[in-house]
Amino acid sequence: MASPITVLGQNQYGKAENRVVKITRDGGTHHIKDLNVSVALSGDLDEVHYSGSNAHVLPTDTTKNTVFAFAKEHGIRTAEDFGIALARHFVDSTEPITTARIRIEEYAWDRIATSGGDAPHSFVRNGGEIRTAQITYDSRDGGSLEVLGGLKGLTVLNSTDSEFWGYIKDRYTTLEEDYDRILATEVSAVWRHNWNGEGTPPDWDECYAGVRTLLLRAFAETYSLSLQQTLYEMGSQVIEGRDELDEIRFSMPNKHHFKADLKVFGIENEAADGAVYLAADRPYGLIEATVLRDGAQARIPVDMTNL
Amino acid sequence: MASPITVLGQNQYGKAENRVVKITRDGGTHHIKDLNVSVALSGDLDEVHYSGSNAHVLPTDTTKNTVFAFAKEHGIRTAEDFGIALARHFVDSTEPITTARIRIEEYAWDRIATSGGDAPHSFVRNGGEIRTAQITYDSRDGGSLEVLGGLKGLTVLNSTDSEFWGYIKDRYTTLEEDYDRILATEVSAVWRHNWNGEGTPPDWDECYAGVRTLLLRAFAETYSLSLQQTLYEMGSQVIEGRDELDEIRFSMPNKHHFKADLKVFGIENEAADGAVYLAADRPYGLIEATVLRDGAQARIPVDMTNL
Amino acid sequence: MASPITVLGQNQYGKAENRVVKITRDGGTHHIKDLNVSVALSGDLDEVHYSGSNAHVLPTDTTKNTVFAFAKEHGIRTAEDFGIALARHFVDSTEPITTARIRIEEYAWDRIATSGGDAPHSFVRNGGEIRTAQITYDSRDGGSLEVLGGLKGLTVLNSTDSEFWGYIKDRYTTLEEDYDRILATEVSAVWRHNWNGEGTPPDWDECYAGVRTLLLRAFAETYSLSLQQTLYEMGSQVIEGRDELDEIRFSMPNKHHFKADLKVFGIENEAADGAVYLAADRPYGLIEATVLRDGAQARIPVDMTNL
Amino acid sequence: MASPITVLGQNQYGKAENRVVKITRDGGTHHIKDLNVSVALSGDLDEVHYSGSNAHVLPTDTTKNTVFAFAKEHGIRTAEDFGIALARHFVDSTEPITTARIRIEEYAWDRIATSGGDAPHSFVRNGGEIRTAQITYDSRDGGSLEVLGGLKGLTVLNSTDSEFWGYIKDRYTTLEEDYDRILATEVSAVWRHNWNGEGTPPDWDECYAGVRTLLLRAFAETYSLSLQQTLYEMGSQVIEGRDELDEIRFSMPNKHHFKADLKVFGIENEAADGAVYLAADRPYGLIEATVLRDGAQARIPVDMTNL
Repeated sequence: MASPITVLGQNQYGKAENRVVKITRDGGTHHIKDLNVSVALSGDLDEVHYSGSNAHVLPTDTTKNTVFAFAKEHGIRTAEDFGIALARHFVDSTEPITTARIRIEEYAWDRIATSGGDAPHSFVRNGGEIRTAQITYDSRDGGSLEVLGGLKGLTVLNSTDSEFWGYIKDRYTTLEEDYDRILATEVSAVWRHNWNGEGTPPDWDECYAGVRTLLLRAFAETYSLSLQQTLYEMGSQVIEGRDELDEIRFSMPNKHHFKADLKVFGIENEAADGAVYLAADRPYGLIEATVLRDGAQARIPVDMTNL
Repeated sequence: MASPITVLGQNQYGKAENRVVKITRDGGTHHIKDLNVSVALSGDLDEVHYSGSNAHVLPTDTTKNTVFAFAKEHGIRTAEDFGIALARHFVDSTEPITTARIRIEEYAWDRIATSGGDAPHSFVRNGGEIRTAQITYDSRDGGSLEVLGGLKGLTVLNSTDSEFWGYIKDRYTTLEEDYDRILATEVSAVWRHNWNGEGTPPDWDECYAGVRTLLLRAFAETYSLSLQQTLYEMGSQVIEGRDELDEIRFSMPNKHHFKADLKVFGIENEAADGAVYLAADRPYGLIEATVLRDGAQARIPVDMTNL
Repeated sequence: MASPITVLGQNQYGKAENRVVKITRDGGTHHIKDLNVSVALSGDLDEVHYSGSNAHVLPTDTTKNTVFAFAKEHGIRTAEDFGIALARHFVDSTEPITTARIRIEEYAWDRIATSGGDAPHSFVRNGGEIRTAQITYDSRDGGSLEVLGGLKGLTVLNSTDSEFWGYIKDRYTTLEEDYDRILATEVSAVWRHNWNGEGTPPDWDECYAGVRTLLLRAFAETYSLSLQQTLYEMGSQVIEGRDELDEIRFSMPNKHHFKADLKVFGIENEAADGAVYLAADRPYGLIEATVLRDGAQARIPVDMTNL
Repeated sequence: MASPITVLGQNQYGKAENRVVKITRDGGTHHIKDLNVSVALSGDLDEVHYSGSNAHVLPTDTTKNTVFAFAKEHGIRTAEDFGIALARHFVDSTEPITTARIRIEEYAWDRIATSGGDAPHSFVRNGGEIRTAQITYDSRDGGSLEVLGGLKGLTVLNSTDSEFWGYIKDRYTTLEEDYDRILATEVSAVWRHNWNGEGTPPDWDECYAGVRTLLLRAFAETYSLSLQQTLYEMGSQVIEGRDELDEIRFSMPNKHHFKADLKVFGIENEAADGAVYLAADRPYGLIEATVLRDGAQARIPVDMTNL
């Protein structure tokens, strides 16, 4: 029962990590969508916490069933379309539920190349970055829909055109300035669409591909004096190049590559001659920032990592 | 340089996952502290993003050096004390830095039992839950200090005294009601101290041990009609039992144990007789909620997971 | 079909990682066994490879069902007993199958302490080492049974009584000799029982507990000049102390703890005064060896890691 | 010291997981090699185990230094060339060492596409399969050199052309026969070169690319009645197509995709119409086998997994 001195705050529940694969057949040619779908519902749920009454609870098992049934009934055109349909469904069809947040990871597959060309129904997993989407539908105050796109695991490296110098030096500073270093990071990014559910939605796939191209180009083409500068450049190019986006947030670890110290063996190891580096695991620099369209509000939560 | 149509939003940087181990010798008896320390600094940092000028940047490498030097200079009494010293140092000694957030994971070690009793300097890692702490010091507006305690990886299981029934049944509901099920979860919890840096700080170790005991007892002693009810009971008991805390947030996956269907082999498999269960990985129910002291403000961020 | 120039070599198949949990009720007091069971079968299986004929194949799905059914029908006294029953069953009841290898991981749970003493049916996962077992039953040549016990994830640390010096120094050697270092490792060990299936089997639980105690004591009580010496001492004490074992193999990474270099900050950091260490991830020394009872044959495969 | 009743068996030691990155500059165009190198040495090493004497021990730290120094002094043409040079060096230059085994993982990077074409010194990690190599040099008995190539993490899926029926049905069999199922696996493969160190070595890169192509094609083009049949076909095509190889071993989990049961909702979900599948984690079928050139000896160890 409700404690006399405590109250319930924000709460949500649902089934996480539903691994749904949909094959679509177009004659002998098949297409594949491979998603990991997580559902989180909120609403009039005080009683299930206070007394254990489940009268307002749609079981997480049901939310799982719905994900698989919707994949067949409605198909999966894009992760975003699928998430919007699910979010609206849970809120519109379940009276106590006022908010649904659908998070999706999408794994890409390429066709296998055979002697006769691209295979019609054979695929090899593309192990690159994971595409993400988050759809939040809230029925209160007239209803609102927010769609976040994103990616994670996009690992990139510039083997030159990166410097780091001119920083604060205090008692504990030992780092030497570097005028030619490796800059490497594993990009996690989340971007916010300004589409609010009314009118024509963006072309989700075209937008994703466009953002990915802008991120890679900005990383490759920025002569970098700091990872922060590179990050901001990446964010700016995305906001400038994609009118449908108002905000982007990054979490970018500095994947350190330390030049091996070979002087003691009488071996030169200069960047200019092609050097050998030790790729370090921990600790790592971690750079996180939001880039906004001028005048837009920041709505993407600041915490994208747990450490 | 700054783009004409974009602006920088929230940003932070620092060295993450500094793995620092401190041995303290008391004659032949040694003590060990084993931490993973992550530093995040914020402040007047626009220029490093806009132009790459590092004039306001204390290198992440320096923050790493500081962690190790402080461990020797000041010792590590508790993770919380250590984090407070670090947070104050970065802000107070580095002019452009106004906010420091220190996150710490602590790994526990037990003494090895030998023929002659507990070993004086030999340890075995206690693989149970990880203790966490987050210290945030902000020098603006007169200065504020916030300390969050926490734990993760505390996996618990009740083999009975758990039911689940009386829920909403829609078109996609197939789950059967259950009057005797296993309830298992891996508890992640974060709690907020109301101490603000003035006056005597709490006894951090005693508080941690006390919260852990309350969480385990509440889990064990609650006859559960829903995981939400158990969660709320755990949170309430912590807030009621620990005056120094105002808020606690949980992320608790429902680690499903499905009764194996053996009827087809002519084998009964009822909970009452001691049953066999399949421990499932994915998908899983995920229950998240905050419990607050009445009148307190919710300040712990809602997002504790990325899925 | 069979290729004219290739032949099939060793092969095996089965269902891996069946996560089976068995609750046994003794009135209000419950007991829990939590296993991860992997089945691998071999025998007259050429045709399934050459032509795809499954006439000799017991489906992996059936081996899964059998694991869960046996857990209820026969109970799980120990992982070893359970594995022996499964291995004999698959070979004895399936004509083309001549060999069955059952691998088991066991996860330990402790009772939760409540205000009224140890809880009767509430448990907290003991996150320490994982107990392992491998049972191989081969019906050919009169039948043979081999039982391997083991553990993994037993992480131990001596904060002194470890030296390293007197080694070979070549052109690439820069390591300084150390007369007081931390010695830490994560023990993986596999031991072989000389019981062959006839006569009274060992007391599996007593043996496991005994080996674990010997391993920990030998680690703690050995003044170490090399990790190899410590490893050999651990193995010898196990073979000397447990008549039922003939062989033990170890894989022990040297979990390096490097003394932080604080001299540049004017801070002493000597082991004798209690030092600060950086716990490193990669690379790590890796020490692997077998210790045998004099006259026994080495049968445990050399490869316990993939790197 | 040596125990009176135990003896030392097979043993080896070295530094594992040296993460070495080599950049080669060709004017403004850079090339990258990204390896994870593990060293294991054996030889006259009894005393370090029995008494802790390190007189015959080249420190693992030295083996690490050697990896980085060799990367600069000799460059890294291929993982195999680099491993051969290292293995020969350790054995030939260190008197007590008679055998060296070098294991290498290689991570692939692609050039980033920019507006001006492929970037000259900007790369994006190709997250697909990991290339592996193992080089063993043994100076005893006149000297022998063995080179294993391999890959892991190559995940493939056929969305049709897979059946499974005609298997043994016992008391515990519930699986229904399936005439149109998804077949998916994550290929781990190790192949053995018949080159023994004399004469011209194979073109390692060309061989790797050739094997990968054969594996993918055989997977895509085999109409499958069992995963074993597909595995054998993959192995046969590699042995038939690559004269330089005598043996290949596979470990292939059956990544189950279960058709979602939607009948209860009145929804058809037939493979022929494009179905929805649940991608399962555990348990999974695990198929392992060796394919040999007729007359060749099996030398690749059977154990490629720990479960």
